[in-house]
Formats: sequence, C-alpha cells, structure tokens
Amino acid sequence: MFNEKMHRLGSNRSVIRELFEFGKQLAAKEGADKVYDFSLGNPSVPAPAIVKESIQKQIDMPKSTVLHGYSSAQGDPDVRKAVAAHIEKCHNVLVSPDLIYLTVGAAAALCITLKALKEDGDNFLCFAPFFPEYTVFTEATGAALRVVPMKDDCKMNLQAAAKLIDENTKGVIINSPNNPSGAVYSEEEIKALCALLGDKEKEYGHPIFLISDEPYREIVYDGVFVPYLMNYYDDVVVCYSYSKSLSLPGERIGYIAVSPKARQAQELYYAVCGAGRALGYVCAPHLFQRILLDCVDAPADVAAYDKNRKLLYSSLTEIGFECIKPQGAFYLMMKTPEPDANAFSDRAKNFGLLLVPGDTFGAPGFVRISYCVSYDMIVRSLPAFKALFATYEK
Amino acid sequence: MFNEKMHRLGSNRSVIRELFEFGKQLAAKEGADKVYDFSLGNPSVPAPAIVKESIQKQIDMPKSTVLHGYSSAQGDPDVRKAVAAHIEKCHNVLVSPDLIYLTVGAAAALCITLKALKEDGDNFLCFAPFFPEYTVFTEATGAALRVVPMKDDCKMNLQAAAKLIDENTKGVIINSPNNPSGAVYSEEEIKALCALLGDKEKEYGHPIFLISDEPYREIVYDGVFVPYLMNYYDDVVVCYSYSKSLSLPGERIGYIAVSPKARQAQELYYAVCGAGRALGYVCAPHLFQRILLDCVDAPADVAAYDKNRKLLYSSLTEIGFECIKPQGAFYLMMKTPEPDANAFSDRAKNFGLLLVPGDTFGAPGFVRISYCVSYDMIVRSLPAFKALFATYEK
Repeated sequence: MFNEKMHRLGSNRSVIRELFEFGKQLAAKEGADKVYDFSLGNPSVPAPAIVKESIQKQIDMPKSTVLHGYSSAQGDPDVRKAVAAHIEKCHNVLVSPDLIYLTVGAAAALCITLKALKEDGDNFLCFAPFFPEYTVFTEATGAALRVVPMKDDCKMNLQAAAKLIDENTKGVIINSPNNPSGAVYSEEEIKALCALLGDKEKEYGHPIFLISDEPYREIVYDGVFVPYLMNYYDDVVVCYSYSKSLSLPGERIGYIAVSPKARQAQELYYAVCGAGRALGYVCAPHLFQRILLDCVDAPADVAAYDKNRKLLYSSLTEIGFECIKPQGAFYLMMKTPEPDANAFSDRAKNFGLLLVPGDTFGAPGFVRISYCVSYDMIVRSLPAFKALFATYEK
Repeated sequence: MFNEKMHRLGSNRSVIRELFEFGKQLAAKEGADKVYDFSLGNPSVPAPAIVKESIQKQIDMPKSTVLHGYSSAQGDPDVRKAVAAHIEKCHNVLVSPDLIYLTVGAAAALCITLKALKEDGDNFLCFAPFFPEYTVFTEATGAALRVVPMKDDCKMNLQAAAKLIDENTKGVIINSPNNPSGAVYSEEEIKALCALLGDKEKEYGHPIFLISDEPYREIVYDGVFVPYLMNYYDDVVVCYSYSKSLSLPGERIGYIAVSPKARQAQELYYAVCGAGRALGYVCAPHLFQRILLDCVDAPADVAAYDKNRKLLYSSLTEIGFECIKPQGAFYLMMKTPEPDANAFSDRAKNFGLLLVPGDTFGAPGFVRISYCVSYDMIVRSLPAFKALFATYEK
C-alpha cells in the first residue's frame, strides 16, 4: 500500500526524539526544574542581532515580489558571490560563485550531494562516532554507508578506513568539529586521510570525493585550528549550514560548495543542480538567502557554549566520570561506568538526566551530552550527576 | 564519476528557463520595454500586507531561539491546527492536525508523497496538459509516470485514463486549477474520475491514491467551484503550497494533508514522515510556518490576475487567435496557427514575445502564456501579437 522502508523511518522514532518526549512527560509529572535535558542539538544562543536587523531591512524594501519570489534554483547570484568571498577571505581558497549551490540546510546539502554522486553499486564511508542520519541519507540514494569503527580517543581510524575503501567507494563523509564527540580532526590527521584517498584514487582510477559536513565549523574553543579541506585535497564538496553559527536551525539555510579543483567540477555542479531538482528543492528560502548578504561574516557567539563546556567537563571529571574533552561543536562524550550505554541512559533518567546512548552514533559505551543549554541548568544538574555516579560506587 | 541522470537534469535547462535567459539577452540588446516575457509563473501580485505584519510580529517576539529553532519534523503543532481548521472551515472536511505535514513548498510535498507511496514496479498517472516536473519527481522515486493524453478542450480524458491504469498504478496526480491550461475540473468530471478509480480499486484490490497538487486552489475567476477531493473520494493526499495564494514562492512553505478517510491513514502519514526524513527535509522554514498562524485565512488577491486574464483573452481572440478561456491559475493556453508550437514560439521571439511551447506540458500545438505580469506589459504587447498573427495571414 505504501513504501515499507519509509514507513519504518517515519514510525520508528529516533532515540533522541524518544528521550525528548520522555522528558516532556517527566516535566509534566515532576516539574520542569527536575528535568535536565541534554538530548537535543538546538542552539541555546540567540541569533546575532544582525540577523533581525537584516530581516527588518529586507521586509522594509519595496519589492516584496522580488524578496519572496523564486530565486534561481542554485540561489541568488549576489548571495553566492558573498558566500564565495567569505570562503576566500577565511580559508584562502578561490571558489567560484558558480560552483556554489544554496540549500535548505545541511541535511539537504548532504542528500543532494550523495544523490548527485551515486552510481550503481557505489558505497560511501564515514568515521564513527557519526551523525546517524548519514545512514538514512545514504541509503535513500540506494548506496551503502560503511562506518569506520571509532578509536577510543575519537581520532580518525585510518587503518580501518584503508580496509573498508574499495573500487566502489565514491566518497568519504567527514564531520569536524564532530557531532557527537566534539573532536576536531588535526591537520596531521587530515593530511594522512588525504594521502590515503589520493593513493586509493590512483589505485582505482577514479575520484573518491571528500564530503565535508561542517555545520559546526565556527563553533570551536581554545583557538583550535580547523583545516579547510579544499587546501589539502582536490575532489572536495563542502556541505555547510548556518543552523549553528547563526542559530537558525529551523530556517533551513546552507550551501554546497564544489571545489574548483575537483575533477570535472563544472559537470559535478550540474549533477548537484539536477539532484536538487529531482529531490524537490526548488530554491532555498529566499528571505534567508538574502540575509546572508549581511550575515556571512558575522562571528558565531561561542562564549556561552565555551562556558558550559568548561563547567561540564571539569565537574564531570571531578565527580569521577571519564570524558572526551570537546574542542568544538556543543557536545561532550562521556564514557559510561557500565558497558551498556542504554542501561546507563535508563538509569540516568531516574535522576532526571536525559543523556543519549552512544550506540546510535557508533559509539557504544558512551553517552552524548548536548551542552547547548542554559548554564543554570548545568549547575542545577550537577548533584544529579553526582548521585548517578554514586550508584556505581556501591 | 557522478550520476549521469542527475547531470542531465542539471545541465539541460528547461524550455522555460531557456526562454527566460533569451529574454534577458534580448532586453540587454533591444531594451527591456521591447521584451514581453510571458514565460514564468512568478506571482506579480505582492504578498498581502498581513504577511509583512506577521513577520514583524514574529521577529519582535523575545524568544528568537524558539522562532528560528527546529520545529518538529512534521511542523509546529499550532500551525498544523490552524491549517486543519482552515480546511474544515472552507471545505467542510474534518482533517486531523496529526495528518498534516508542513513542507518546503508543493514540489517537496509531491516528492515526499510519491516517495512515501512508491513500491517496486509502481506507476503513477497524470492528465495532460501537466506540469513537466511531475516526470522528474516521479522518476526520481524509480516509478514511471504515465501521461493521459489531453483533450482539445483540456477536460479530463477519462476514457484514455481507464486504459492506462493497471494493477501497478499506485496513484493519480491531478492539478486543478491547472498549470498550464487554467482549466478547473468540474464536479461532474471529479465524480466521474472518482467512480473510475473506485472501480479500479475494487478490481485490483488495493488503493489508488488521488494526489491533488493544488497550489492554485484560490486563484479562480467568475466564482467557479473547485471541488475539494476529500469530499468525493477516500484515498486522497492533498499537496498544497502558499506560493501563489500568498505570493511567497521563494519562501517554500506548503503542506501535505492525508485524508482521515484514506485506508491506513495513520500508517501512510508515517510513511510521509519517513520520506521527508529520507529526502533531507528536516522541517519547513520555521518563521514562514509561524506566519501561517495569521495568514491561513488571508484571501488571495485575484483581482489583478483577473483583469489581466480578461484583457488578454478578449484581445487575443479579437486578433484571431484561438484560446482556451482560463477559469483559474494565471496561465492561458493559445492554439498555435501552425502545428509546430516550437516553430511558432521561435517566430514569436522576433516580436519580443516569450511564449512557452506546449510540447513540454504534453500540449503540442499550443503555447502557454503566463499572465502573472504587469497589466501595462500586456497592453504594450498587443501590437506585437497582432503583427505576429499577421505573418500567418499572408
């Protein structure tokens, strides 16, 4: 009667969504102040003031038929120029506005890129821990996603990757700063990955694309350096979103940038345009395209996240938990004191703590803690973490 | 290296886009006042004032993290309630907010619906003349689109449809008011179609869904009645967009409504949610979801289109052209004085007239004239139409 696979995707709630719903019920029963929800990745920092100013400016202009009208499918030319100029300024890479395609957020960017690349029999790789929707997006194109097992320090497991790449590997997705680990891959790791892919490209005689999913690019701490992949490798497609840097996740605005050095870059870009068309993406929301003219260079406000990160990391390690110190994004991975992260997450619920079991991210034995929450909630949650830890000491 | 089919979709410009680009070049050479562009369906009527007021109200609220944050995947619950209430009020149908799924416009609504329904071997039907992207959207799911040939008066060709439906037919797309013909299917036609589909459902023992693509629902003239399909048939999925009624095509906001009377409606809705997820539609743009709270009941401003329609229809028939009188939307189909509509369209370019050949809509021997343009441009174009017609009189 209808597609079974789609039905399964729509009826099986994600673990994260389950936790979120549980939290709502708990809050209704026990009071909202008794629930410490660390489950979601919804930015807690408001959009910078320039976003509102820019929306105001746009809606005060006389021609609403232009503002709210269709843009070209690949996006407003002026906006694509502004995005290209920003990339050049920040990363010292010449990208062409004509190789930029504005998207309805990073999820759309990934789906379009995978659909544009995928041929019969193709597979894609990603590194655990990883954002679980990669599986959904890849399989929707008919391709398989191969997950490179994680290393305990969340660095890239290149030895395992080398074994998983074969002649049908079309691309490798990387996500740095990483959701869920908060890791940022070092320049050394990136160089090693690019060397590996370069060798494999030669061996198999076709490009293996590096697909960089980077919505957290600007959310980094302690001045850590995030290598820009186009500077290290030719066959690169960047998938970006303003969801986190401008705190606009609900407005769905992002882009795909094809590296001008990618083999047949122009033809690949056409395939991107075609995939966007086939998936029903007529254009990215036009008002939010236009505000990028004012906001592309707006700095992300990371101070609040950094404050949360410091408090959480130091408090949890002090309590006795083992944590991976995040360098970016707004997630922290904590090792669970028992091997089964699901059991640990269930036990945490008794203390009002909503922590996502790592299994869904390819990180068994860990929970993900989203700290895009209020500082106050973290402070109030610490006794609960302490009490939870104590149950493992008996 | 990448997907050939996507490359073809992205590199072959549509006929409409080709005309539009030609028009820009012509305008640069001859002056914009010498080009009469009837090619695009971008609304020329500004969004109603309440849209701007509502955006203003939303951005002036204190909680930008809520406004610009993720909504649930199926859309803000309050907005879904408002949409359901509007449908009940206008069409006397009880629809559940929990069977409404807000989308990134009608194209997304169609792609998601087709993906949710499609099983191996399925085909879908549509009636010519038809919106050519239906082919792209259907084939992207792996299903085939069967086009029912048009009748010269643009009414539904039910006899031909009966022959094209087989046991693998999963759904029939209808689009009324119609792009490109401006036809509105009468209650009589709708009843006959529903009777045919009901018989076929019984014959094959499975549902055949009526997929109603209705972005032009409110753009109708002379008080013509547009039957609401849920009142005539059970297995209905409505795909709606606010692009035309609120003049917001670039903002991408619409919805899917599954009829509560559809077989396994709840399960079908889950498949819709799953398909949305698989195609990368995280949620519809949140700000434009929220403005629906104020705007769902805002009347579409059809007066300007109606004025255009009357002038164009009476002038063209007076000149000697044969036209189908539109009852809705903002398109008019004109019979070409020579059988080859492409040759006619090419000849029209010499007079600065950009008219889309009907072949792309399954309507050979016709051109589509979009009259969502300024009244003044129509007035100025009439001598060109006259001169064009004269070339066929010699």
